[in-house]
Amino acid sequence: MQMNAITLTTDFGLSDWFVGALKGVIHGINPRATVIDLTHGIPPGDVEAGAFALAAGFRAFPRGTVHVAVVDPGVGSGRPAIAVRTRDYFLVGPDNGVLSLAMARERVVEIRRLENRRMFRAPVSRTFHGRDIFAPVAARLSMGRDWTMVGPVVTSFQRLDWPTVERRGAGLFGTVVYLDRFGKAITNISGQMLAEISSDAAVEVCVGRRRVGVVAECYQAVAAGKPVALIGSTGFLEVAVNGGSAASLLRLQRGSRVSVRTRKRFTR
Amino acid sequence: MQMNAITLTTDFGLSDWFVGALKGVIHGINPRATVIDLTHGIPPGDVEAGAFALAAGFRAFPRGTVHVAVVDPGVGSGRPAIAVRTRDYFLVGPDNGVLSLAMARERVVEIRRLENRRMFRAPVSRTFHGRDIFAPVAARLSMGRDWTMVGPVVTSFQRLDWPTVERRGAGLFGTVVYLDRFGKAITNISGQMLAEISSDAAVEVCVGRRRVGVVAECYQAVAAGKPVALIGSTGFLEVAVNGGSAASLLRLQRGSRVSVRTRKRFTR
Amino acid sequence: MQMNAITLTTDFGLSDWFVGALKGVIHGINPRATVIDLTHGIPPGDVEAGAFALAAGFRAFPRGTVHVAVVDPGVGSGRPAIAVRTRDYFLVGPDNGVLSLAMARERVVEIRRLENRRMFRAPVSRTFHGRDIFAPVAARLSMGRDWTMVGPVVTSFQRLDWPTVERRGAGLFGTVVYLDRFGKAITNISGQMLAEISSDAAVEVCVGRRRVGVVAECYQAVAAGKPVALIGSTGFLEVAVNGGSAASLLRLQRGSRVSVRTRKRFTR
Repeated sequence: MQMNAITLTTDFGLSDWFVGALKGVIHGINPRATVIDLTHGIPPGDVEAGAFALAAGFRAFPRGTVHVAVVDPGVGSGRPAIAVRTRDYFLVGPDNGVLSLAMARERVVEIRRLENRRMFRAPVSRTFHGRDIFAPVAARLSMGRDWTMVGPVVTSFQRLDWPTVERRGAGLFGTVVYLDRFGKAITNISGQMLAEISSDAAVEVCVGRRRVGVVAECYQAVAAGKPVALIGSTGFLEVAVNGGSAASLLRLQRGSRVSVRTRKRFTR
Repeated sequence: MQMNAITLTTDFGLSDWFVGALKGVIHGINPRATVIDLTHGIPPGDVEAGAFALAAGFRAFPRGTVHVAVVDPGVGSGRPAIAVRTRDYFLVGPDNGVLSLAMARERVVEIRRLENRRMFRAPVSRTFHGRDIFAPVAARLSMGRDWTMVGPVVTSFQRLDWPTVERRGAGLFGTVVYLDRFGKAITNISGQMLAEISSDAAVEVCVGRRRVGVVAECYQAVAAGKPVALIGSTGFLEVAVNGGSAASLLRLQRGSRVSVRTRKRFTR
Repeated sequence: MQMNAITLTTDFGLSDWFVGALKGVIHGINPRATVIDLTHGIPPGDVEAGAFALAAGFRAFPRGTVHVAVVDPGVGSGRPAIAVRTRDYFLVGPDNGVLSLAMARERVVEIRRLENRRMFRAPVSRTFHGRDIFAPVAARLSMGRDWTMVGPVVTSFQRLDWPTVERRGAGLFGTVVYLDRFGKAITNISGQMLAEISSDAAVEVCVGRRRVGVVAECYQAVAAGKPVALIGSTGFLEVAVNGGSAASLLRLQRGSRVSVRTRKRFTR
């Protein structure tokens, strides 16, 4: 029997019984499931942060893993619930964009709407689809249940209105899209985009009007307490502070502007 | 061999090694145990919140699950420790009321005092019975060890002094008993009580003197930022704010008064 | 096949996908691994707190457990990564002292530097060795892979500059080394040291100039809200407040001085 892992990404927090209840339902259906928390610390209702965390973490898991993301401010209102089959994974969640950044990084094979109530927990509450719909569907998919049973194929789905990077001449103009626990600011500028404007990474990074410096190899490339830009573990440009918080020191938030220019434009 | 899940509900938090130590002890006794956190975010020493979280979450788990709850401000002082066999589950914890709300929702078969030191970890500390008593007893129960070995039968146990709902005429007068991570206020008024005063749910909910409105079907029944009353996933009446925190907006805390009246008493 | 547990102790927090990514990598290598969080709540970069939490918790696990500790402010800078084989466990982490307090409590058999890239995840990022080096090495050790393959033997390693206890006459002068979630202050004075100055535990404990009292047996030895000293579950002297926080009430922090004297010096 197939026995794939299930990951959970939610805004449920850990102070209540919500995450435990999902795992109880999964365990009741598939006692041999390995359930792994990606994170439950997404700010309440913050679909973009949930989408980013899922997209940043899901490829660390082996093929066949069922990734569940429940950041679902519209629960009970009639928004569709979907499951996505990609080349390597299953994705399960509300159709509100929370799955869309991960989908953009995968070859999507098929999308289906969750409509088969026999795969749900009964009765289905109006306020806790994580427990009543997403967890039981994921548990059944982790056991190798027939994918086509979850519901009918759909061809469109909700995408996030995600900021894009502008390229003007040899400059890239991007945005902070995620702030992590260490106060590192992750941008939407990928390492590949950087390589396209400069083959030797000899570029200067600015946050707003403030120069951060060149793209370094590690946090310790600068003195303690100083800001540093580098390509982080997600493959995107990030701004950090060695031993500190870039979010605090540079007053960064989601949406803050970050630019990259080839270095010759600056004097040192 | 029986191999049942174990859940943990504590006020240990996740910033120290306490929860890990419980799991280490369990793993040493029953390496095949599935251990699931219900929550470790109960405020320190808050027996009532622990009892509510356990009662709200424990029925999501399959029969045979061993539920451990350790909110135990009296650890080491001689308060008894108990295990409870219900029709579907085992409950393990201090005899201070933390198990009592779950017990009220189950058919209790037998209660025993934990006195068999051969089921404990040695030596037993005076300050960490979670690690030294509750975890090893739960691990052994999860393996199907003889229930009667844990200790002698007892017939009385500590109940919480839980607020009751008053019914006056066609009105119900209840209390907020739990505030969750989203700022939703869960009351002690059950959906069944509501059905008894009004067959069509045409009632008005008030928080103190403030009218919240009718009992809705989902959070989106009201505009964003507005309060809404509904029967939540626990089966109890709750007051929420669509996309916000009822606790903040309505200044709710545990003990806040919530009333329900048949709607004809109000003009709109 | 050997199938040992893996524990994780980090400063990654739980609000991002970092811990999940480690577990994804482990699951991809050893799908049958039991992975247990010791804690991820170590303050960012606080190597001393990480070392203490690991040392306090690791012996609750059965022999063969692989303990991973990643509090690693120097990631990517060239600091060595090591694995340690002790009589009972494997320890894996950066060579910055985070393993050293646990090592001091174990019989160390051999230390090796992690240099075999075939045991790593490819490619190895410069900023996330938890995912790319420590998790995959731990996963392979948990499966019983040949220990000698991880890399060459080393004979020296980084120790923490840990405060020592001074003994002057019948007095012990120690330091608060850890503050836990309950506001308890754990010192570096062991129960054994106490026994050496007083066979009957009739000693007085002071925090700075403030007398806390004798060494009690449990928190309830004093009235609610009052401070109490006792030997905690780690085997070290701790200062607590019955039902409250010693850290707040006595304004304790790491480094605060705690002294113990034989009681006859005091009048009551």
